[in-house]
Amino acid sequence: MEVTVSSCDVREVLDLVADKWSLFIVANLSDGPRRFTELKRAVDGVSQRMLTVTLRRLERDGILLRTVHAVMPPHVTYELTPLGTSLLHAAAPLIAWSNGNLEQVAAARAAYDAG
Amino acid sequence: MEVTVSSCDVREVLDLVADKWSLFIVANLSDGPRRFTELKRAVDGVSQRMLTVTLRRLERDGILLRTVHAVMPPHVTYELTPLGTSLLHAAAPLIAWSNGNLEQVAAARAAYDAG
Repeated sequence: MEVTVSSCDVREVLDLVADKWSLFIVANLSDGPRRFTELKRAVDGVSQRMLTVTLRRLERDGILLRTVHAVMPPHVTYELTPLGTSLLHAAAPLIAWSNGNLEQVAAARAAYDAG
Repeated sequence: MEVTVSSCDVREVLDLVADKWSLFIVANLSDGPRRFTELKRAVDGVSQRMLTVTLRRLERDGILLRTVHAVMPPHVTYELTPLGTSLLHAAAPLIAWSNGNLEQVAAARAAYDAG
């Protein structure tokens, strides 16, 4: 398989998707809009500040749409844009790979550490 | 599309592939074994220490095979294992997405910053 990647492109890739939480957030919006508090619960282990920063970055990158609902009480929801949905589809094989190979990686680690 | 991800799985995903350099290194090994110095040149902007740490982690995770060649002068090469090759295939859509959407993301950023 040919995978051609220039250094410049890859730095952009990294900026976009290879941070610690982006893929997780995008995956958690696959079923539709979510409130901040719902994402906070779903993304176990993320700090409030890190979630805020990552959501803002994804919004700025055109991946998420942030909507303020002027009801009582007012609240904010996040949902994938069409661009974000295409990112979700592109990331799905990598997420599936990770889910499917956790044990193999764990075994490799154990063998490495034993060696 | 259904993308089901538990928090626990995703933390493993993040440990595996969502660090700043892993995808890049894996992509750069798509054509076969490379020496450390070749990777250093290809991964523009990575520090020697960060490259060393990332290569060791990918080796430990069973993604890379590290081979010491006992010739004069001795040298070390890195290549993808079968597991690493399957990771490369799984990551290819995400890399292609990033390459194909750099301009759209740049436009979204400009619009966000102007707003």
